[in-house]
Amino acid sequence: MALGEFDLIRRYFLREAGAGARSEARAAAGVELGIGDDAALLRVADGEDLVAAVDAIVAGRHFPACTAPRSIGHRALAVNLSDIAAMGAVPRWALLSLTLPAADPDWLEEFAAGLHALADAHGVALVGGDTTAGPLNVCVQILGSAPRGTALRRSGAAPGDLIVVTGTLGDAAAGLAIVQAHAPGAADSPGQRELVRRFDYPVPRVEFGIAARGIASAAMDLSDGLAGDLPRLAAASGLAAAVAIERLPLSAALREYASLAEARELALSGGDDYELLLCVAPQRYQSLAAAAEALGLPLCVIGEMHAGSGVAWSLDGAPAAPARQGFDHFR
Amino acid sequence: MALGEFDLIRRYFLREAGAGARSEARAAAGVELGIGDDAALLRVADGEDLVAAVDAIVAGRHFPACTAPRSIGHRALAVNLSDIAAMGAVPRWALLSLTLPAADPDWLEEFAAGLHALADAHGVALVGGDTTAGPLNVCVQILGSAPRGTALRRSGAAPGDLIVVTGTLGDAAAGLAIVQAHAPGAADSPGQRELVRRFDYPVPRVEFGIAARGIASAAMDLSDGLAGDLPRLAAASGLAAAVAIERLPLSAALREYASLAEARELALSGGDDYELLLCVAPQRYQSLAAAAEALGLPLCVIGEMHAGSGVAWSLDGAPAAPARQGFDHFR
Repeated sequence: MALGEFDLIRRYFLREAGAGARSEARAAAGVELGIGDDAALLRVADGEDLVAAVDAIVAGRHFPACTAPRSIGHRALAVNLSDIAAMGAVPRWALLSLTLPAADPDWLEEFAAGLHALADAHGVALVGGDTTAGPLNVCVQILGSAPRGTALRRSGAAPGDLIVVTGTLGDAAAGLAIVQAHAPGAADSPGQRELVRRFDYPVPRVEFGIAARGIASAAMDLSDGLAGDLPRLAAASGLAAAVAIERLPLSAALREYASLAEARELALSGGDDYELLLCVAPQRYQSLAAAAEALGLPLCVIGEMHAGSGVAWSLDGAPAAPARQGFDHFR
Repeated sequence: MALGEFDLIRRYFLREAGAGARSEARAAAGVELGIGDDAALLRVADGEDLVAAVDAIVAGRHFPACTAPRSIGHRALAVNLSDIAAMGAVPRWALLSLTLPAADPDWLEEFAAGLHALADAHGVALVGGDTTAGPLNVCVQILGSAPRGTALRRSGAAPGDLIVVTGTLGDAAAGLAIVQAHAPGAADSPGQRELVRRFDYPVPRVEFGIAARGIASAAMDLSDGLAGDLPRLAAASGLAAAVAIERLPLSAALREYASLAEARELALSGGDDYELLLCVAPQRYQSLAAAAEALGLPLCVIGEMHAGSGVAWSLDGAPAAPARQGFDHFR
């Protein structure tokens, strides 16, 4: 039975109060009026800035066509939460514009489960959206808040700041390569399954972003790969960056999957890690490391900022260059 | 020469301060950080609520594939401004997620011109967005503000309230029919060209929505057609509505194009008018009419609200029913 547009919104995306998880109280905070009117009415506390971003994901571009709908629902929100994390803001509300070829109940059930689980984990309320028939396109708008003047920007780095990254790099790109080379779910080993999971269910570093506020000098999220993203942070800060490739944090699963040279190339040029890239003054590094440790999140110094422009990559002291400069949708 | 994703954003959507029109000062107000970081930083004034909506438009669903890119840029923002208008809020900021098959400079130039012209007319700043390669999908998120507790909702109508609509109904549906029956731009008469213009360049009733705040009891915008939209307002208010079809405001252009019966059917069931549907207590109607007159906007009483549920349609005193109940993307 074909589901109508309004049935679809009601059934999958309009949740009654009480349907959320532990973070439900935060999700409800500030929602004066949610799904069901022409627009949502939201309340940003006095003394807070609103933080807003939008990202769409498209089959064949951001994920293979065979991707599980639960992963698609997760990813659509995760990539947006990652933007909020990079600002050091608290995610509050999301709006969903869902374009899909047909209203398939099984697909929608799984998609909504992936989206809602991540929203619940971060206390995010889905407050609006629309649905349209057309080629699959999942567009999420995320709204967050941060005390005035405290949000992390790409432009705040200073000469001498250390460049740090969270987690490990290159895992998602390896996971995507495994998915593309095999049937879905047919990874060969626990390590490969872990890499595929890193691609399918990226973990936005929201709690760490909030913790880094007031400590880090600049931040951005790694969505297109370090080799493409770091030059943007350096340019925004009006500085040069120097990175020692041998310092890039590589997971055991990635090292098992690829040679050291291949793993480093994936860490440099592979996208979709959604780790955070931050700058921090050397005298504040210990505070940042302590915040990461409190969250059980690895933190790794990979280089430092200097006067000048561009990024100088080195490997064991010798100049080196990434083979690719990150992902661009139109090249 | 293929344009890269970042060139594309920079060239078409990142405008320097000073590029806007008269409303530039309002557009800049509250923008702490616009396009270029992981998210925008915005400031909602103390004592104001944030109003947020999202709507995507898709070729073949919301507009014919032959539609001029300038019209597409206009429409993508107009449908969202219309949601803000229906809340009686002031539109402030927009984010754009643009999925398009190729980075065609001519197309982008025209698309951006349509979007920016309407944004300038309403003092809206484009503060963020992303671009992706894929089937054309234009998703805009609109953010506005209204003094706390003053926004118009669908749920506020009371028994005895008059039901009013702005402008004339059915024009856009006639315009679409003309476009679909002819080559683009080949309308046969000034009247037909006017109907096509009503489809291609819908005018969101933003100023009137703001003026209706504190006077109207409920409001929504007419995007799917009166026959589909009014039952939603009635349900949200927990009331029944009675509408006299002979009162529906029809333009001279529509009357020239169609028989009276056809014109009424288009006014009932045709979408895309983006006029406002409002309820108002009888003793406040003169205030609302004065506000409309000050803006040169026709306002027409078409019925009234009662205790009960559903919508009773009548024509010259006899019960009547629209042939279609408005547009649903999945039916």
